[in-house]
Amino acid sequence: MALDALRESLVRKALRVHDLDVIICRLPENVLLLTGHWPLSSFAFAVFPREGGCALIAVESEAAGIPAGAVETVRTFGWGVVEALNPYDQIRRHLRDILADQGQARGRIGYEGSFESVAPGHMAGEVMVPAAPTLATIQAAAPQAILVDATAMLYRLRARKTPFEAAKLRLANEIATLGLAAFREAFEPGRIEADVAARVEAAIRSQGIGYKGAHSVRAWSQLMSGQESALAYTPHPATSARRIKRGDVGLLELATVVDGYWSDLTRTLVAGRPDSRQEDLYGAVLLAYKATMQGARPGMQGAQVDALARSVIDRLGHAGEFRHHTGHGLGFRYHEPHPFLHPANTELIEEGMVSSVEPGIYVPGCGGFRLEDNVIFTRTGVELLSAFDTSLSAA
Amino acid sequence: MALDALRESLVRKALRVHDLDVIICRLPENVLLLTGHWPLSSFAFAVFPREGGCALIAVESEAAGIPAGAVETVRTFGWGVVEALNPYDQIRRHLRDILADQGQARGRIGYEGSFESVAPGHMAGEVMVPAAPTLATIQAAAPQAILVDATAMLYRLRARKTPFEAAKLRLANEIATLGLAAFREAFEPGRIEADVAARVEAAIRSQGIGYKGAHSVRAWSQLMSGQESALAYTPHPATSARRIKRGDVGLLELATVVDGYWSDLTRTLVAGRPDSRQEDLYGAVLLAYKATMQGARPGMQGAQVDALARSVIDRLGHAGEFRHHTGHGLGFRYHEPHPFLHPANTELIEEGMVSSVEPGIYVPGCGGFRLEDNVIFTRTGVELLSAFDTSLSAA
Repeated sequence: MALDALRESLVRKALRVHDLDVIICRLPENVLLLTGHWPLSSFAFAVFPREGGCALIAVESEAAGIPAGAVETVRTFGWGVVEALNPYDQIRRHLRDILADQGQARGRIGYEGSFESVAPGHMAGEVMVPAAPTLATIQAAAPQAILVDATAMLYRLRARKTPFEAAKLRLANEIATLGLAAFREAFEPGRIEADVAARVEAAIRSQGIGYKGAHSVRAWSQLMSGQESALAYTPHPATSARRIKRGDVGLLELATVVDGYWSDLTRTLVAGRPDSRQEDLYGAVLLAYKATMQGARPGMQGAQVDALARSVIDRLGHAGEFRHHTGHGLGFRYHEPHPFLHPANTELIEEGMVSSVEPGIYVPGCGGFRLEDNVIFTRTGVELLSAFDTSLSAA
Repeated sequence: MALDALRESLVRKALRVHDLDVIICRLPENVLLLTGHWPLSSFAFAVFPREGGCALIAVESEAAGIPAGAVETVRTFGWGVVEALNPYDQIRRHLRDILADQGQARGRIGYEGSFESVAPGHMAGEVMVPAAPTLATIQAAAPQAILVDATAMLYRLRARKTPFEAAKLRLANEIATLGLAAFREAFEPGRIEADVAARVEAAIRSQGIGYKGAHSVRAWSQLMSGQESALAYTPHPATSARRIKRGDVGLLELATVVDGYWSDLTRTLVAGRPDSRQEDLYGAVLLAYKATMQGARPGMQGAQVDALARSVIDRLGHAGEFRHHTGHGLGFRYHEPHPFLHPANTELIEEGMVSSVEPGIYVPGCGGFRLEDNVIFTRTGVELLSAFDTSLSAA
């Protein structure tokens, strides 16, 4: 029935383990998880019961785009057209009917109560999230049901990717490397930071749409060059109108989404020929990256994988300059909580988990150097999802 | 004290009217409203009391970027660096101290309970929103306080823009027209839809950053060409790898954000010379647009402004082909609820409100034609915020 039979069985198992009769999701990232379908409108409710088929409440004009077999039942509502004023009335009626059909009107219903980081959807300039109106709509549709915040369960479900999902992430990363190629092409003395960043995004959007069947493709890049790159570990790098000079380091942070599946990559380049200090600093990052790629495997703690990278950087004399974790989960979003490759994280890595590997060194007055790729944990190690040139020289 | 003294007094007045002692906001769009500062990290809490100065809880690395005079007090927390694991602990302590200092530990605290559409922040590839953890953090900081959902109050406050904010929206629109110029340049036979859309976004980002002091600039465009443009009124247009042919219509939907202030524009072009049917359809849209610009003024109902456009389109024989409202509020986001220029909306327009004006005609088998600009309601009419060529021919 489902597009991804393994994912379907994992969701059903989680509902049993967490004693939920049904889960209702409206974040596009979780609708994608439950159905394999990413609603372009960002406005759809998936109703996935412990037993029986999944239902989707979708915008009318989007119904034709739902792949055959994604869900068993589709109900639609009007939105954005002049005759449809309040979609929540229609959604509440559909929810009531679906829950009654599923025999869940008095059941335990899981919902998305604690998502404080969310992925933008296809339109991306506006993001749809669940707040009090969604909770009230669910409760009004089933006044005797018990609502349970299922955020932790959903994050756990998302942590291990199925082969179906891993294939989607390989494609997202393949498309993302179109942007890395544009970065190598564009990063040269005389260019403006903002111009380079815009070219990276444009390459991904213009070449990515239609690439091996990709439909919705978008990228977000931030380029920090020169000494400013030493701040590229902060959560809010800002690309500026700065003009790149010969010998400048440039650190590109790049998020890419392809039909709801995410990639998170970083490359560092020098405009022209790197000097010996730049070679040394980046060389340490590259060694830390390689040690992580070679040593990481399921069964390790997040902290142990982090230590693979951190110990190399510390040993080479850069203790304290690697300011952040070695990696984080991702896939259904730019960042996900599992796994977390951080010195304090004792959770065990599992096969199928997807993580960034991103050692970095940040030296005020000199620059920031980071290399970031995405991996999936296999039975015995990791598989690289994002193969692309890692050299420091753009020339 | 505040960057925008009029906005400060309006917030204080609203808190009095709504019997709130203080409001706590964390959506970047509302932090911007309350302080004039748009936190690049998307992770900051503004605490604005009915009496006394406003406090901001911000990410450490962002404190230096807060303009002097935006708020009275700044408290910081670590985020994204290896030593800062759970920012909510620090945020809760800061909130507790600030509320105690303000004498609000037992007060009525407004919060953002019902925002189900939110604006992406500077990084845009991941969006931070308030959910259960934020609510729990506020309540834990002031266990005896009463929390009140202040969403409706915030939307009402946002509806009328101050002169300070209107100037920001003029700049956002001026930068957005850099993208409209790129559209006129790029829309020609032989080009791929995705390539044209990417060039529009790249022009805004590469030329917009640094333009008249703009710092964070980004755009989202969707281009639908040929017969597919007849679906451009749906909430999820999808730019494809379709190749543009001579005589095709192309409808570009464009959202632009400049330091937190939004523009929403649409232009329709024909690749080559328009035929007489295209001229007629777009001519009707243009007449509806002009009638709205000439007739709209404060004191009218939303429905009356909508009728200015709709009556022209109906009279010219296109009843039922203008599928959506004539306009919507915007400014702190791509779409805001006030005003709403829709046939069923009886709310009165007020001076200072900002709206899109966007009549459109959608004819299956032929194409979609829309023209969208942004206006601010003045004492006697409207001022156009987004002046740019409205002609149908790109040649």
